[in-house]
Amino acid sequence: MTDSSALTKLSISAAAAALRRGDTTALALTEATLARVNETEPTVQAYAFVAAESALQAAERADRELAAGRDRGALHGIPVGVKDNCYSKGILTEVGSKALAGFLPDFDSTVLANLHRAGAILIGKTRCHEFSCGGSEPPTRSPWDLERFPGGSSIGSGVALAARSAYGTIGTDTGGSIRIPASINNLVGMKATYGRVSAYGVVPLAWSLDHVGPLTRRVRDNALMLGVIAGYDSQDANSARVRVPDFTAAIEDGVESLRIGIERDYFLYPGVTDEVRAATENVISALADLGAEIIEVSLPELAFTRETLTTIRLAESASYHRHLIREKGHLYSPGTRATLELGQVLLATDYLAALRARERFRSAMKALFRRERLTALISPTIPVPAPLLPDVWRPREDMDNGETPTDGFVHQVYPANLSGQPALSAPAGFTKAGLPIGYQLTGRPFDEATLYRIAYAYERTSDWHQRQPPHVYR
Amino acid sequence: MTDSSALTKLSISAAAAALRRGDTTALALTEATLARVNETEPTVQAYAFVAAESALQAAERADRELAAGRDRGALHGIPVGVKDNCYSKGILTEVGSKALAGFLPDFDSTVLANLHRAGAILIGKTRCHEFSCGGSEPPTRSPWDLERFPGGSSIGSGVALAARSAYGTIGTDTGGSIRIPASINNLVGMKATYGRVSAYGVVPLAWSLDHVGPLTRRVRDNALMLGVIAGYDSQDANSARVRVPDFTAAIEDGVESLRIGIERDYFLYPGVTDEVRAATENVISALADLGAEIIEVSLPELAFTRETLTTIRLAESASYHRHLIREKGHLYSPGTRATLELGQVLLATDYLAALRARERFRSAMKALFRRERLTALISPTIPVPAPLLPDVWRPREDMDNGETPTDGFVHQVYPANLSGQPALSAPAGFTKAGLPIGYQLTGRPFDEATLYRIAYAYERTSDWHQRQPPHVYR
Repeated sequence: MTDSSALTKLSISAAAAALRRGDTTALALTEATLARVNETEPTVQAYAFVAAESALQAAERADRELAAGRDRGALHGIPVGVKDNCYSKGILTEVGSKALAGFLPDFDSTVLANLHRAGAILIGKTRCHEFSCGGSEPPTRSPWDLERFPGGSSIGSGVALAARSAYGTIGTDTGGSIRIPASINNLVGMKATYGRVSAYGVVPLAWSLDHVGPLTRRVRDNALMLGVIAGYDSQDANSARVRVPDFTAAIEDGVESLRIGIERDYFLYPGVTDEVRAATENVISALADLGAEIIEVSLPELAFTRETLTTIRLAESASYHRHLIREKGHLYSPGTRATLELGQVLLATDYLAALRARERFRSAMKALFRRERLTALISPTIPVPAPLLPDVWRPREDMDNGETPTDGFVHQVYPANLSGQPALSAPAGFTKAGLPIGYQLTGRPFDEATLYRIAYAYERTSDWHQRQPPHVYR
Repeated sequence: MTDSSALTKLSISAAAAALRRGDTTALALTEATLARVNETEPTVQAYAFVAAESALQAAERADRELAAGRDRGALHGIPVGVKDNCYSKGILTEVGSKALAGFLPDFDSTVLANLHRAGAILIGKTRCHEFSCGGSEPPTRSPWDLERFPGGSSIGSGVALAARSAYGTIGTDTGGSIRIPASINNLVGMKATYGRVSAYGVVPLAWSLDHVGPLTRRVRDNALMLGVIAGYDSQDANSARVRVPDFTAAIEDGVESLRIGIERDYFLYPGVTDEVRAATENVISALADLGAEIIEVSLPELAFTRETLTTIRLAESASYHRHLIREKGHLYSPGTRATLELGQVLLATDYLAALRARERFRSAMKALFRRERLTALISPTIPVPAPLLPDVWRPREDMDNGETPTDGFVHQVYPANLSGQPALSAPAGFTKAGLPIGYQLTGRPFDEATLYRIAYAYERTSDWHQRQPPHVYR
């Protein structure tokens, strides 16, 4: 296995197996990945900062450890990218903002510390939209279509995987920011249960909605990566004291008799394009063919999730940024600053009303899962494929209510941020024009394993993950 | 044992033992208690509503059960009072407010349901200050001194015990409202760990600070009562999934080698009167004599607890009352309404800043307990004995900073509401004028048992609990 381009096409599982067979080395994986970085970065710009030197050193160390019989598990020697809102000791952490230019944290975020402990190789910090809510300049571009919106706010975490300049990446998701780039880039992205993955050392957008999670090209890889980053962390006040299972243990068990709900009124609302709708129905049919029970369900409380989440997000992000904006507001992009200042006019009672609405929504969701004995809800991840960049904030021509693509992006993903349930996006197919489509599974709290089991069963029946983007240059 | 006045002097433990020896009956205990109610209520007004008929029926049922060998435990057949902000099915629940006049809940609060299940006899609903934050008209008066402030907001829960018109009562504590009446009425009052006792069906003042808990005349009684009302409740989103131990199991184990901290800068600030200071020092000396290690500690973060708690309380209570005030604001007392509306001008960012300050305080408290290996902090419960009613809101003559007695009331009690730690008030002695003084123990989360153990060890060395108030009319 000397073709470095072929090396970067491997899944994490395959690379891990090759490493242990002696067919490759962590150094070879890292060098191949860095070669891809050099090749693709000028066009896609997935990384904010590439830590080539420390990556090569870490790879050599990983190889020495393996040779000495010290095996840190599935991620040992695997090159990864981590979103630039995660603190990295001695490595730039700028969160896409000039206000944090040159910031060198003196400790690692827990997610990065966990990756290091598992022997993963940090290739670099993947770009994120300014403070996870603005834009990125110069723009990151998806190898699936350089002219289209590449997803966000974990924009580089999606693109680095599509460009094969990482085997797995870490994103964060406050209102879909792991699942949206996963959907747009033909990837698997998991926003686990709130509190499952520590957010310590991660610059927050809205702490009661923020989730840290993995993006990968394959389902099993994602489960392996979550296994490494999940777990209780006393340094994160919201971290959950819940046992971390082996997320791959039952991954091959199939979907026989699993009850999967579909809430058509909300999740298949008129903004869902015909192609996305058809792809979602195809996944549902395939799962039914595999033995899952598909249950039509109704959850009218979904209707107020958007306003509720928005109020909470605006208030918490305004609170977080209040001091920094006072000091360095001139270094924020005007649009980002406006978004982050908007919450300053919200009243405490508005915020508290939203918290109470969130509780009502959680109760309704819990009651639905219990009443219908569901293991998951299925839906599209986003209602549209990646729009052309200039169309992102323009009313859609096929809608008469002024809805823009960005309006639609949040429709299916917000509910799981609000409820804190785990939610995964995985490949559901392609539009005729060749743009990836994703589907979403939303599960029971702390039952990520079942989502992986369903997604793995579907992945086995499809070959979407084998499709390569047209702009990968080899 | 036929003297009904003597019967009402018994502790819960003693009454329970007498019941099981056949020396008395639940009916006799209940009749004696109702006789005390008739005797004392015209003067003290501890009850908002007396449920005499249902109490007598419940007592007869309790006796039949005991006779049939069905023993529900320590509270079986014991007459209790429950604060009027706790829902009682078919029994008036007015929370001291004309806005809820005539309100008959159609279910029991969990605390009352737990008492019923344990066989306790509900004598009636004890008066509370209007919505737990205003006043009470006509005033409830303490049998220790009819002209002085009787504590609050669980005003009737304290007075009913001092007047012996209940063996135990339930209070609620958002900023000291169990511990303050306990201190003023020579009682034991426990605000257990946040989430330990369900608040389901309890009209909130500020839900993230609200605690439900027992008041009793003796330490062991309090531990028995907490054992009955504590436990996880899925209907309360803030209820803690934590095992409930037998709080009396180690109560006689003494204080040998327990490390008890004293933070003099804050808890013994200049507002503490000489008599309260001396009583506190006496408790500390007694505990040291019993083998406890007294540790001088420093926690500068205590300085911002008052402002932090106040912001959270104002915001949450304004949120809760927003709709009711719109509808029935004219039925609130003007002062109460003003207090409850004040929070409507707070910004979401003010509230969130307070939540963040609370987290900082919790971390600092946790670090202190860990660093010093503390089992508890000791302090006065309130800096002054009960003031004369007209002096309650007047600047103290012995202070030159304008501090009123009510300013002082919150000084020592607020920190445990903010941190959520358990805190207990118990008798520490009397002023020369015969007014009760209380001391406070603040413990480790979910370690109420150790607070009982310390308080029990001290109670054994003292006879404060034997002192009868001068105005009990027999």
